[in-house]
Amino acid sequence: MSEYDVLCIGNAIVDIIAQCDDAFLVENGIIKGAMNLIDAERAELLYSRMGPAIEASGGSAGNTAAGVASFGGRAAFFGKVSADHLGHIYEHDIKAQGVAFDTAPLAGQPPTARSMIFVTPDGERSMNTYLGACVELGPEDVEADKAAGAKVTYFEGYLWDPPRAKEAIRLTAAHAHAAGREVSMTLSDSFCVDRYRDEFLDLMRSGTVDIVFANESELKALYQTSSFDKGLELIRKDCRLAAVTRSELGSVVVTKDETVPVEAIEIDRLVDTTGAGDLYAAGFLFGYTSGRSLKDCGMLGSLGAGLVIQQIGPRPRRNLRQAAQEVGLL
Amino acid sequence: MSEYDVLCIGNAIVDIIAQCDDAFLVENGIIKGAMNLIDAERAELLYSRMGPAIEASGGSAGNTAAGVASFGGRAAFFGKVSADHLGHIYEHDIKAQGVAFDTAPLAGQPPTARSMIFVTPDGERSMNTYLGACVELGPEDVEADKAAGAKVTYFEGYLWDPPRAKEAIRLTAAHAHAAGREVSMTLSDSFCVDRYRDEFLDLMRSGTVDIVFANESELKALYQTSSFDKGLELIRKDCRLAAVTRSELGSVVVTKDETVPVEAIEIDRLVDTTGAGDLYAAGFLFGYTSGRSLKDCGMLGSLGAGLVIQQIGPRPRRNLRQAAQEVGLL
Repeated sequence: MSEYDVLCIGNAIVDIIAQCDDAFLVENGIIKGAMNLIDAERAELLYSRMGPAIEASGGSAGNTAAGVASFGGRAAFFGKVSADHLGHIYEHDIKAQGVAFDTAPLAGQPPTARSMIFVTPDGERSMNTYLGACVELGPEDVEADKAAGAKVTYFEGYLWDPPRAKEAIRLTAAHAHAAGREVSMTLSDSFCVDRYRDEFLDLMRSGTVDIVFANESELKALYQTSSFDKGLELIRKDCRLAAVTRSELGSVVVTKDETVPVEAIEIDRLVDTTGAGDLYAAGFLFGYTSGRSLKDCGMLGSLGAGLVIQQIGPRPRRNLRQAAQEVGLL
Repeated sequence: MSEYDVLCIGNAIVDIIAQCDDAFLVENGIIKGAMNLIDAERAELLYSRMGPAIEASGGSAGNTAAGVASFGGRAAFFGKVSADHLGHIYEHDIKAQGVAFDTAPLAGQPPTARSMIFVTPDGERSMNTYLGACVELGPEDVEADKAAGAKVTYFEGYLWDPPRAKEAIRLTAAHAHAAGREVSMTLSDSFCVDRYRDEFLDLMRSGTVDIVFANESELKALYQTSSFDKGLELIRKDCRLAAVTRSELGSVVVTKDETVPVEAIEIDRLVDTTGAGDLYAAGFLFGYTSGRSLKDCGMLGSLGAGLVIQQIGPRPRRNLRQAAQEVGLL
């Protein structure tokens, strides 16, 4: 019997969130809507120019793990923090959400990763990530029992940025598949796809990854096409199941021979898009690992995404199980 | 000519904010709506029981300083952090808001103060404060030029909790009055008033404090009366000017011979009352130091308070000057 519904693996990052106008992004050379990788020196510089901020645990797959737990699923997480104050905050928050998290923290330098997230008036978020301790995640951090015991393992494409995390992914996937489990990934970011296109396609075509999450721009970047439909036809050949999100247009879930369109939920006000894709994956995977239809999985994803974009910060403050029950999805 | 409009002095605290239900407060012996002082051991215990949280710079008078600056006023702050990560965050946030902050951080222990704030579904906040480095604030931290150069000095009654901050207050007040400036305080919390009633009354009656901010329960605690009107008659005799807030009933501003009722602003949804009194004082003091009528000072206070209680965290993310302009107050 499976001990976990979803095992998530990702960069363990504390978000530092502030608002800014579009001119600030231009003046500081920040690519809008993207995850910009930065070094320690640029992190200091940007922080000195950043307005008053709030701090909140984040990181793409960590947000997904927290979301799965908030929906009532059993979630685990692999990710590397340092044994410093931000690392303590990260560990607190993910465990307090009910996620199993036992990756040994790094003793000493580099410090826990942080991402300075600038939110513009249109709600778009532009991330500036200093990877810090995340660069130390490696195969020695793979807990075989969790890898074999989770119905689905989910990891972020961002893990191709640090040097050895991909080894941890391949090892986890081997444990998972040996136990008859499934492996999923998110393409994370269109620039990330540009950096690792061939490797991501190889993960899918070699069967290392069974289920893929992407948004429209990541899908187009993956297949270097401007046609969404063409991208959809290609991705359904390259993996068993893919869920492609399209912001307010909802999402499309495809298998080899099925195409399931899913609506977005109506929102009152777009505040901050941070975590939208992460919470879509959380809802989808919670639904998937509890045996629901692809349509319902997508609707749970829409709910998670729709709620998180109406608040500041990447992890919904509302209990997602309760929210899903209120709209009749659970 | 004055260099600053408002100099604020207070405990420099980073807030750790989470939601909980009322049962959690009862089970953990937390007095609802109050500022509960805790030691390092209890801080660890409560954090281990706390749900996923976000971190934001707080502290009563620090919030007021940030608010004054957001309204467009010139604000300064005295408060003690430690040279640790939370201290770095605190310093960043208050300076990024445009507040002059030059108090030397403490090298080493104790660490920067933190307050675990539990927000219940009714929006009420219950604070649990570990004072940490704040206990080291003393008269050596008084910058005479700022004390003499600020139109109004404002400090929090909470400063009677750490051992030597009151010496800093008395010294600052002496500098301020010698320069013909005014001194104001907030009574902070009804339990705080119970702890220091005689000293607070002496501050007022001796003329150390000219202007007093209080809410209804603090006023009643100060004069040990259940009658709001009786409290109002007493406080107008004990200080030159007092502003007493009454939540959704607005506030009443009194001098020896004037009584100015002020309405609260309409809000869409009460989210978190943290910072309400602090931002009332910010709006009021911004108005007062820019020569506005008592009514307008109170309305600016209502605006600051009304905006901060519609978000999580004690410092409004909206620019207050812009918000005031939109409703015709500036």
